[in-house]
Amino acid sequence: MPFIYQRTVRFQDTDAAGVVYFANALAMCHEAYEESLATSGINLKLFFSNPNVAIPIVHASVDFFRPMFCGDKVSIHLSPCQLGNDNFEINYIIMSADKRLAKAITRHVCINPVSRSRQELSNEMMLWLQQWGS
Amino acid sequence: MPFIYQRTVRFQDTDAAGVVYFANALAMCHEAYEESLATSGINLKLFFSNPNVAIPIVHASVDFFRPMFCGDKVSIHLSPCQLGNDNFEINYIIMSADKRLAKAITRHVCINPVSRSRQELSNEMMLWLQQWGS
Amino acid sequence: MPFIYQRTVRFQDTDAAGVVYFANALAMCHEAYEESLATSGINLKLFFSNPNVAIPIVHASVDFFRPMFCGDKVSIHLSPCQLGNDNFEINYIIMSADKRLAKAITRHVCINPVSRSRQELSNEMMLWLQQWGS
Amino acid sequence: MPFIYQRTVRFQDTDAAGVVYFANALAMCHEAYEESLATSGINLKLFFSNPNVAIPIVHASVDFFRPMFCGDKVSIHLSPCQLGNDNFEINYIIMSADKRLAKAITRHVCINPVSRSRQELSNEMMLWLQQWGS
Repeated sequence: MPFIYQRTVRFQDTDAAGVVYFANALAMCHEAYEESLATSGINLKLFFSNPNVAIPIVHASVDFFRPMFCGDKVSIHLSPCQLGNDNFEINYIIMSADKRLAKAITRHVCINPVSRSRQELSNEMMLWLQQWGS
Repeated sequence: MPFIYQRTVRFQDTDAAGVVYFANALAMCHEAYEESLATSGINLKLFFSNPNVAIPIVHASVDFFRPMFCGDKVSIHLSPCQLGNDNFEINYIIMSADKRLAKAITRHVCINPVSRSRQELSNEMMLWLQQWGS
Repeated sequence: MPFIYQRTVRFQDTDAAGVVYFANALAMCHEAYEESLATSGINLKLFFSNPNVAIPIVHASVDFFRPMFCGDKVSIHLSPCQLGNDNFEINYIIMSADKRLAKAITRHVCINPVSRSRQELSNEMMLWLQQWGS
Repeated sequence: MPFIYQRTVRFQDTDAAGVVYFANALAMCHEAYEESLATSGINLKLFFSNPNVAIPIVHASVDFFRPMFCGDKVSIHLSPCQLGNDNFEINYIIMSADKRLAKAITRHVCINPVSRSRQELSNEMMLWLQQWGS
């Protein structure tokens, strides 16, 4: 079951070409990730400022099929996939009505934020992966 | 009757001090403005790329009372006020539960985007002012 | 002697109306502030993540006189002014050639980031105020 | 000969984890692209709002090797590569001193912005490709 996040394209997301600035599409996908974490009961403030655990993005990519305009109502379909005991990947599809506008991927690795060495994913992240993974 | 917009503070809104980057509070208020326009039936794509009418912001200010953190659920109370036949001001209060986190103002002037000379507010903007004004 | 910061308007700064998105003008001013701190010998990484001292913005305002377009080369004239032993204000003028495009103000208060109570400005900030203040 | 763009990491680029927000690394690369166009004599305002030609990004990816902090001075090495008569790819390496912090790719297709059908790259873009390509 993918997680589905509803989002309206904002004026701030656009650029002088009249469409969404390319990097902002990835920010919209990250919003969907944040909302999926919150929906699984994870406290976002603690999650993103935890001094013992961080899960930075080590890779991201995005492909655009159609332009996105201010006011467009899009739904972002998010499905995570575990890759190892310390990392996972998220696939995103940005849809409007039944049309695919863009797809994206983010890859995340769990680390200690001070030493920056890898460490195992927490139980709460394993539950999140089970809840929204395919 | 003010317009009330619900918004979750996003990771992207924050900075390395751990709280919302100051200029992003104004962007959150602009989102509330966009949502109030859409709720009044205004097409945002046409509104923000209209070759005959633009309503740029000529002044903005913001005051901060408490910090905002990633994941915070805030409600933005928006109330517009007409100043003349070609301009208006919007007051915003950003609340969390019953606490005021920030307040902001934006002042807008209706112009022709090519000549950049002032022109009267459209009927749809007059209706929007009546709908959400005090 | 004001500090002068040279900046090119970036595509990312613009919106679908073809000009700089209003809140991004304040972000451009904050860049000038950062550069003035670095020029005074302050380490920005330590400054913005200091666990003992933070100097958050409590007020900001901006007035726009002319639109700014992608590629415009602007100079931001920054002059700080001490208000008390724990706070100061910065005035900014954004110029292009000899034309004023916008002016802005930010007001900052020195606090302990944990207790969020006020504390005196550090010696390095006093020197920065003397260096660029009028 | 790659184009090299010097950039300081700004407070606005960072997030509550204390490092550059992932999507902002791609925006930093786009700044390098804009600067390379301007250095080749291309007018950025006309380039990005040309009603007859647009060169949107259809794909982007980024890989992170080390975190980037506020105040870091990075150099972005940009090298474009033509793929066909209507498209090209740009490779970016973000360096600090002699360390690679991140690498990125953007892929661009030349279109008519109204019909959104593909069209050949202009002479000025062919010259830009020759100037900075390997």
